[in-house]
Amino acid sequence: MARYLVLTGGVGGAKLALGLSHVLEPAEMLIAVNTGDDFEHLGFTICPDLDTLTYTLAGESNTKLGWGRAGETWQFLEALEALGGESWFRLGDKDLALHVYRSQRLAAGASLGQVTEEIAQRFGIRHRYLPMSNDAVRTTVHTGQGPLAFQHYFVRDRCEPAVTGFDFAGADAATLHPDIEAWLGGCDGVIVCPSNPFVSVDPILALPGMREHLKRLPTIAVSPIVAGLAIKGPTAKMMAELNVPATAAQVAKHYEDWLDLFVIDEADAGLHGTLSVPTVVAPTVMVSLQDRIDLARVTVDALS
Amino acid sequence: MARYLVLTGGVGGAKLALGLSHVLEPAEMLIAVNTGDDFEHLGFTICPDLDTLTYTLAGESNTKLGWGRAGETWQFLEALEALGGESWFRLGDKDLALHVYRSQRLAAGASLGQVTEEIAQRFGIRHRYLPMSNDAVRTTVHTGQGPLAFQHYFVRDRCEPAVTGFDFAGADAATLHPDIEAWLGGCDGVIVCPSNPFVSVDPILALPGMREHLKRLPTIAVSPIVAGLAIKGPTAKMMAELNVPATAAQVAKHYEDWLDLFVIDEADAGLHGTLSVPTVVAPTVMVSLQDRIDLARVTVDALS
Repeated sequence: MARYLVLTGGVGGAKLALGLSHVLEPAEMLIAVNTGDDFEHLGFTICPDLDTLTYTLAGESNTKLGWGRAGETWQFLEALEALGGESWFRLGDKDLALHVYRSQRLAAGASLGQVTEEIAQRFGIRHRYLPMSNDAVRTTVHTGQGPLAFQHYFVRDRCEPAVTGFDFAGADAATLHPDIEAWLGGCDGVIVCPSNPFVSVDPILALPGMREHLKRLPTIAVSPIVAGLAIKGPTAKMMAELNVPATAAQVAKHYEDWLDLFVIDEADAGLHGTLSVPTVVAPTVMVSLQDRIDLARVTVDALS
Repeated sequence: MARYLVLTGGVGGAKLALGLSHVLEPAEMLIAVNTGDDFEHLGFTICPDLDTLTYTLAGESNTKLGWGRAGETWQFLEALEALGGESWFRLGDKDLALHVYRSQRLAAGASLGQVTEEIAQRFGIRHRYLPMSNDAVRTTVHTGQGPLAFQHYFVRDRCEPAVTGFDFAGADAATLHPDIEAWLGGCDGVIVCPSNPFVSVDPILALPGMREHLKRLPTIAVSPIVAGLAIKGPTAKMMAELNVPATAAQVAKHYEDWLDLFVIDEADAGLHGTLSVPTVVAPTVMVSLQDRIDLARVTVDALS
């Protein structure tokens, strides 16, 4: 039995993680989740990427919105807005339960990893996922308008400010979650989901020792860029603002220090054989559950 | 123009306060609200009596439930319950907005009085009401099963444990809200709403100096007991457990150190002239808005 570590961030990454959970047994995979976009808001500790994965793996993701929780309502947020409270971060009534529960558990001394596992258990999720670290790491997006906390950039300002760079406050002093560190010691390869390289994957890579693990282990990444476009989110826009080509080739270059295999979409088949890293061409746009499973199968087969 | 201080606690008190707000101009009344039943829960500071009054004065009270906010939904609480979180205190989605807003403002250094006024303004409430104190006072209900924090007794344990006594932690060191203290200096009388004497009115009376103000000023109280029954809540049950008669006469006796006039219901007209304090007989069961206004008029007329 092979064992894989899966790195993921937001919605696109969670789609592949769901596919992987249909292809691999719980004992065959551990998912390390970006927490760089966590933030403190209205007194809560909010962990968007962990929650996206929870809802996705539990079959509770809101397919109508493309984010958040299924069957969501907005009574709380409307009432808060009427009170003059901050309403730019769209906290749904059901989603809020996670933030209240987690914040209370953290205040009581539980680690983020412990709380994550409690939540996963309550949702009946069999495949294990953990925050990349129990320590706080917070992504700052540097822009032409100055530095912005990630969610201010991403949600409040709708990714409008032009990006000039990123930093991950706390990453230098943070340690990988101990169970991720232990898993890396005995695992057979790393799968990097099609998440934003700059703000979903790089925060995980910023943790001390992570890049060394990736250099040492077989790795495969799925491109989040298809035909010059990001399926979701600001990846392509960021690349243009950073004055690099918004291409799958550029993502491979971004990962070249440690990447062994790169999955590109059929739309980018022309890149096959032209990159410094070997490529696998496959349909990477995941619309149906079967798309997720098929891409997961291609990825695992290529790595093993 | 006469000026009155109104003392109130929960739902019954808020009904008369609403009536008074139809009879008196904003400049003629200030409402001092019990905060002894406030508590910290799920990371929030929850102030049930303040919120009951807010919803009542704003026309936002839930007439179907008899407590809480109009048009309430329960998505948050159901999701929290599924997570294994504490769900015995029924926090509605809309109601939650107040707790989040208040807790965040308190954490930012605002006083409870400031937050209360911000909320009142947002709800468009013209008549002024304030927490009895900016300092925390917390009612403990002593029972045969040991001491219980008020909301544990009242909501979680549904008033089932037999009561043996009460204390109001923090009251000795607390000060009346400064604007209540100032108002008392120049006001013409005090109206005590038909609230629970032990857990709604007594916490206010426990604040240093309050009883002296009441002894000095003209006072009128409306009996919360009608024909040996409490209109709402555990007043009559408590009195039985405390081995005193569950009667309006006993409430008058409880207040006798400072009470000048006592409003009793027509059902208790037989008590008229038999108490140590002069009584006014009136319909005190407030079903309609007009009932509230009529009782407010009787009370103000009797006091002035």
